Amino acid sequence: MPQGQPTSVPEDGLTTRQRRNRPLLLVHTGIGKGKSTAAFGLALRAWNQGWPIGVFQFVKSAKWKVGEENALKVLGASGEGGTVAWHKMGEGWSWVQRGPSGENDNTANEEKAREGWAQVKRDLAAETYRLYVLDEFAYPLHWGWIDTEDVVETLRNRPGTQHVVITGRNAPQALLDAADLVTDMSKVKHPMDAGQKGQRGIEW
Amino acid sequence: MPQGQPTSVPEDGLTTRQRRNRPLLLVHTGIGKGKSTAAFGLALRAWNQGWPIGVFQFVKSAKWKVGEENALKVLGASGEGGTVAWHKMGEGWSWVQRGPSGENDNTANEEKAREGWAQVKRDLAAETYRLYVLDEFAYPLHWGWIDTEDVVETLRNRPGTQHVVITGRNAPQALLDAADLVTDMSKVKHPMDAGQKGQRGIEW
Repeated sequence: MPQGQPTSVPEDGLTTRQRRNRPLLLVHTGIGKGKSTAAFGLALRAWNQGWPIGVFQFVKSAKWKVGEENALKVLGASGEGGTVAWHKMGEGWSWVQRGPSGENDNTANEEKAREGWAQVKRDLAAETYRLYVLDEFAYPLHWGWIDTEDVVETLRNRPGTQHVVITGRNAPQALLDAADLVTDMSKVKHPMDAGQKGQRGIEW
Repeated sequence: MPQGQPTSVPEDGLTTRQRRNRPLLLVHTGIGKGKSTAAFGLALRAWNQGWPIGVFQFVKSAKWKVGEENALKVLGASGEGGTVAWHKMGEGWSWVQRGPSGENDNTANEEKAREGWAQVKRDLAAETYRLYVLDEFAYPLHWGWIDTEDVVETLRNRPGTQHVVITGRNAPQALLDAADLVTDMSKVKHPMDAGQKGQRGIEW
């Protein structure tokens, strides 16, 4: 058998090159550590390829993951790899006008999550990025804030070569079914089990 | 119950602060994706804290993980966060003299792996780094190239506050027992199952 020849070839009408460079939907789920961390690690590879990267953080606090944010922003601004756009729900999303200085923001998180997804849809349609990190996006799906069917349909029909990685516990089954790669991060052991709190440089 | 108060306090003679800032041994194992990727994602947080980071890649090919390597080197040289030293077994380790131009290197991988661990031991004793990424280090332990007992003892007695993350499949049980945090990355679904080969920006 020639080297590099797969044992079975799918009858999908694609050439090997087309199949190889097919846009991927990746899901990191499970209750263990590393779901988001691995997604941002993946962004390092995308950056190295010179790809434009869009990060959408679907979390309440804007203070989470500052390490990854600072690092990816420095990389994006270095002029050596791809660009990095970092969007935070915890700051009310940068593209949404919420009155003077963004204060008195009473928009519910549910509404903010939907605004985030609406922007992702616009960016997918416009092919704004080559890699999308939808961090903690599984939660608003799990909670029913955002329609999973709409997400699956949108991702299934996205144009061009746009890779999407979605993180978070309790990713809905329909999303897993639609994904190309699913990794379940299982907790085997965690320092908090031994009475230790999270610490700087490790947890954030 | 006052907020932030753990329900049970370990009888380890440590203050909460001491316990919180205890150096951690983290292991990412399992057959799924994301073990190394999450380790390098963790390095972004360490970088953001200004910590010196030492990466030791226990893999044969020097070409693996160039995305992460390039990104972390740019970060390390940016002058904004911590420093990054990247050591590659696949290039025969930078600190080992192997004759003119490093050619005709017939050193067995087993020997190279042991040289790598010897250097890690020296660096731990000297407290050279604050975070050690021992990438794919579980393999030489699993294969018996390096004595797991020596590794566990060395890590258990390491001075100061040095965090260590070890990746790779088949991490020996004694290492898991010694670890503070263990995450098992399980494969739920992988594109190669559908006849798709790895692609640039995603797999490397």
